[in-house]
Amino acid sequence: MALIVQKYGGTSVGSVERIKNVAKKVIAAKQAGHDVVVVVSAMAGETNRLVGLAQQISELPDERERDVLLASGEQVSTALLALAINEAGQRARSFLAHQVRIETDKAYGKARIKSIDSTRVRKALKDGEIVVVAGFQGVDEEDNITTLGRGGSDTSAVAVAAALSAEVCEIYTDVEGVFTTDPDICAAARKLDRVSYEEMIEMASMGAKVLQIRSVELGMKFKVPIHVRSSFNDAPGTWVVEEDESMDEVLVSGVTYDKDEAKITLVSVPDRPGLAAQIFGPIADASIVVDMIIQNASEDGTTDLTFTVPKADYKKARALVEQIAKTIRAKGVNVDPDIAKVSIVGVGMRTHAGVAAKMFQILAREGINIEMISTSEIKVSVVIDAKQMEPAVRALHKAFIEQQGKL
Amino acid sequence: MALIVQKYGGTSVGSVERIKNVAKKVIAAKQAGHDVVVVVSAMAGETNRLVGLAQQISELPDERERDVLLASGEQVSTALLALAINEAGQRARSFLAHQVRIETDKAYGKARIKSIDSTRVRKALKDGEIVVVAGFQGVDEEDNITTLGRGGSDTSAVAVAAALSAEVCEIYTDVEGVFTTDPDICAAARKLDRVSYEEMIEMASMGAKVLQIRSVELGMKFKVPIHVRSSFNDAPGTWVVEEDESMDEVLVSGVTYDKDEAKITLVSVPDRPGLAAQIFGPIADASIVVDMIIQNASEDGTTDLTFTVPKADYKKARALVEQIAKTIRAKGVNVDPDIAKVSIVGVGMRTHAGVAAKMFQILAREGINIEMISTSEIKVSVVIDAKQMEPAVRALHKAFIEQQGKL
Repeated sequence: MALIVQKYGGTSVGSVERIKNVAKKVIAAKQAGHDVVVVVSAMAGETNRLVGLAQQISELPDERERDVLLASGEQVSTALLALAINEAGQRARSFLAHQVRIETDKAYGKARIKSIDSTRVRKALKDGEIVVVAGFQGVDEEDNITTLGRGGSDTSAVAVAAALSAEVCEIYTDVEGVFTTDPDICAAARKLDRVSYEEMIEMASMGAKVLQIRSVELGMKFKVPIHVRSSFNDAPGTWVVEEDESMDEVLVSGVTYDKDEAKITLVSVPDRPGLAAQIFGPIADASIVVDMIIQNASEDGTTDLTFTVPKADYKKARALVEQIAKTIRAKGVNVDPDIAKVSIVGVGMRTHAGVAAKMFQILAREGINIEMISTSEIKVSVVIDAKQMEPAVRALHKAFIEQQGKL
Repeated sequence: MALIVQKYGGTSVGSVERIKNVAKKVIAAKQAGHDVVVVVSAMAGETNRLVGLAQQISELPDERERDVLLASGEQVSTALLALAINEAGQRARSFLAHQVRIETDKAYGKARIKSIDSTRVRKALKDGEIVVVAGFQGVDEEDNITTLGRGGSDTSAVAVAAALSAEVCEIYTDVEGVFTTDPDICAAARKLDRVSYEEMIEMASMGAKVLQIRSVELGMKFKVPIHVRSSFNDAPGTWVVEEDESMDEVLVSGVTYDKDEAKITLVSVPDRPGLAAQIFGPIADASIVVDMIIQNASEDGTTDLTFTVPKADYKKARALVEQIAKTIRAKGVNVDPDIAKVSIVGVGMRTHAGVAAKMFQILAREGINIEMISTSEIKVSVVIDAKQMEPAVRALHKAFIEQQGKL
């Protein structure tokens, strides 16, 4: 008998019929002898409907009131699931954020959980009840309603699991688990049985959008095993867990890509101290997130400076950079929105040199030109022409994963 | 400068456009120099949509979870109105029941308000904010969500007004105010300028469904002047206030009717002590509410016993009564669903004898047969054939109201 936290996303509770199915799965876990706490998202489409209502009223809605509005979506799905479990003959009790004090900071729309008071949940479990907790929502110290951002219910679930020292946090979703790469691009992609928190963070931040990153960070901090699995069948999914020695044997766990960035280059900038601040200050002030930055000093005292920004922001960024270019007397500005970032991720890289070199060889063999490179301890990313993204992913997957890529 | 509580019903906030209109009215009151607290219902249709979802899951939904579900409707409209006021340039802040502790008993679906903590509302008003409070919802002492029943937002508004000692509680609705009778039946019906709490209670309980009765009881208890008016124009509506001497001069303030009852007669029941308990015990056990009861003892030691029940329950009641009839050896059971109750209401009756007699004369003149009679201090009700309901209402309205009915 264990304490299990299960999280169901919007698709899994997207209709009354699906909610009834979720109730069955929850009850099966209860009848297997476990204490069960369920965290739910809003029904699929509901959050978008509410956002739409807010936008009919205001282009830039007041953030506090927007969160009050959005939090209602999880209130509905939470109550409906509790109703469905009760109807199926098991006792269930719902709790909203203010009832179990999922306390967050005051950052409306992207709040971070600070603490959870698990007293009422524990009491309900002791009374034999199944507990249903509203995901996505929190309250600040003054009881104002906050929300955790898109995918926030994942974080709610892991935080609840941490507060209860649950044996596992099961994330039920519409995919089978975490894959070595996107199966739509590479038919040989396969489901990972286990992946470390660190790898998951690197993969999630680069397009393997299975879990909200913050939920993985929280899982890592509190050592909560996370089991990502399908809500439509009983097959085991992917465990996101602490790194262990066996993981080191695998060089690369996943190949990811990101097509949502654009590249901006400042050509022949006179090189002097303070230059980077002069360029990136105004961009940060415009709330544009810069990802990769590369600077190449040249012999003649000028430098080329290249960086990537989200594609959605690149026109705004270009306008800014063209102004800056005049001020700092750069020769020009080049913009390329047709790029893709391809990355390999694996904790095994830590103990094996030469992984990056092998990656560059493989891409060279495919005739793929590398425009930018960025590396971290467990990740190597390259920026290439968007048209070459799919062959690059397939070649890297074949070499590092299908052939278990020894160096 | 006064403190005003305004309540807007579901129709008034039934769309984004209407919510924007409400925001304008609220801001106008604020700009006239008042402190304004607004109480809102769910958008028209939303509560029914949520009830429908619950019923797809369970015929008899768990009451606690049903209330969690239904309360979300007011959360949405409250947030949207606060957004609209903010968008129009005035600062607004929403509060849900748990945030201002609208504390109720534990009677899910029909909870009664016990107390409100007005601290946060007062602070927000002091800060110059317009306060928007979710109607219909409460929390019990353990922070479980409760709801107040259909029309409960009226009661929320009056309770908030009482807690804040507001100068007036304005109830904005889709009618112009309280009428002397139903204008659809009697073209001469006119809007009342003032009506006493007691009269309003008698009228509301008999079909003039403008205000939830409990809101009027609460207004009476805490002496909150209630102004019922249209949300679609600025014309004054009807003030529901304490009785004063001038009201005594009017014999009858309103003529009301109720077509939702059915009549059941037990014929020739052997008359003996304990009979009424034997009959009405099982009916009460079946949660059927009995309204009027009349018993006529006859010379031969038997009695006829007639009573009314809600039309929706009369088949269930008849089945019960037919069983009882056998046990107590009644001669038979007659049922008549085609009845109507017509009533005259007025505090002036207290000080004037003969009002009932005049009512019977008027009905007799119209050839209308009276089947049952019931009287209270400020009300006389008769049960008649449903087909004669409209002529009865018109004749009584003409004699007592249009001709200012002196005796």
